[in-house]
Amino acid sequence: MNKKAVILLSGGIDSATTAAKAVKDGFNVHAVTFSYGQKHNIEILYAERLVQFLKISSHIIIEISPEIFLSSALSSASGLEIPKNRDITDSEIPVTYVPGRNILFLSYALSYAETTGARDIFIGANAVDYSGYPDCRPEFIRAFEQMANLGTKAGVSGDKFTIHTPLISLKKSEIIRMGISLGLDYSLTLSCYDPLKDGRSCGRCDSCIIRKKGFAEACIIDPAANRD
Amino acid sequence: MNKKAVILLSGGIDSATTAAKAVKDGFNVHAVTFSYGQKHNIEILYAERLVQFLKISSHIIIEISPEIFLSSALSSASGLEIPKNRDITDSEIPVTYVPGRNILFLSYALSYAETTGARDIFIGANAVDYSGYPDCRPEFIRAFEQMANLGTKAGVSGDKFTIHTPLISLKKSEIIRMGISLGLDYSLTLSCYDPLKDGRSCGRCDSCIIRKKGFAEACIIDPAANRD
Repeated sequence: MNKKAVILLSGGIDSATTAAKAVKDGFNVHAVTFSYGQKHNIEILYAERLVQFLKISSHIIIEISPEIFLSSALSSASGLEIPKNRDITDSEIPVTYVPGRNILFLSYALSYAETTGARDIFIGANAVDYSGYPDCRPEFIRAFEQMANLGTKAGVSGDKFTIHTPLISLKKSEIIRMGISLGLDYSLTLSCYDPLKDGRSCGRCDSCIIRKKGFAEACIIDPAANRD
Repeated sequence: MNKKAVILLSGGIDSATTAAKAVKDGFNVHAVTFSYGQKHNIEILYAERLVQFLKISSHIIIEISPEIFLSSALSSASGLEIPKNRDITDSEIPVTYVPGRNILFLSYALSYAETTGARDIFIGANAVDYSGYPDCRPEFIRAFEQMANLGTKAGVSGDKFTIHTPLISLKKSEIIRMGISLGLDYSLTLSCYDPLKDGRSCGRCDSCIIRKKGFAEACIIDPAANRD
């Protein structure tokens, strides 16, 4: 029987590629997606499509009270606008930062993993073509893993958890090429932070800009471009 | 204006005493309580009474999907019995251990703190008279704090979070004496993991045994004893 893994799946390029990699590497993959009042909660639908496409073993959708993340522009209740056509090379952490999001998401994955007997957790964190979020950096991931192995029964018993970040040091174009080589269909992914009412991507938020740049640098046509 | 703090409040002796201490120390206290399918979910009612008694500024109750913690005997859906009259000096981590509970609870407190501008988080973790849970030990708390300051915008900006554990090295009797000296009314607390249908404590679970031992060693009559 394959080794069980828990993966954080949002419906975007990075988590989809990470999931495809985990499946390819022979893990029995269990996906976790979060509903937290995000403006782009349509991403949950994309996550469900990816689960079907990748034949992922199970999928749970966890509700997080929107008040926890209220200060982020990604929160539909924040009253803040998603920045458009921003200079993504700006080193300041943008208003789309969600307070402690990956910490909370990884904590859920950790509890779920320990409960179900998984010791491998996958997250599509990426510290190259990203928006400068502190919870996507390798030093944070290492600190989380260390903390997890000090604060859990499995960890202190020597049956340690591993946080896998196969994309952490890849450029977006390299991620896309990896996904294509794994047979991933990127038309099943959504990157936009602020989709239009008809579901099309805005094309101007950080996430849309990084996606466009990634496909261009990979010299690949984005299969979602027709949709958008 | 007083410095804002977020506190994890369960309705038990430790979190009640921690809250009383934070209030006494002049913090503007915001309490967070969790509903996670625990058998003793009546504790939420006690948390609400403590919020009134201690004049805590705000109180949110967060729902956690019970499937996350399903392998713990504390979960009402686990099908596992709460051990009774167990030797609490046994060094094995008991089946009442909840996978990654304090990690998930602290992660919620952290996101809520960053969202609302608090940088101080209080938890009643105690590593002396406790059940041997790994997420109550000082080395875990330090690792969490370090991880939190690497993975948040506030943390990396130098506006760091502090996890306060005023009880971490106290015996239960010392905690009770501290609470009494702070004017705390322990009849407003509930310790039992497995309350009877009429709400009275079972008197035989680890938590009841540790409570009884604590009051006895403090030479104080438990004001909840009449109720139970």
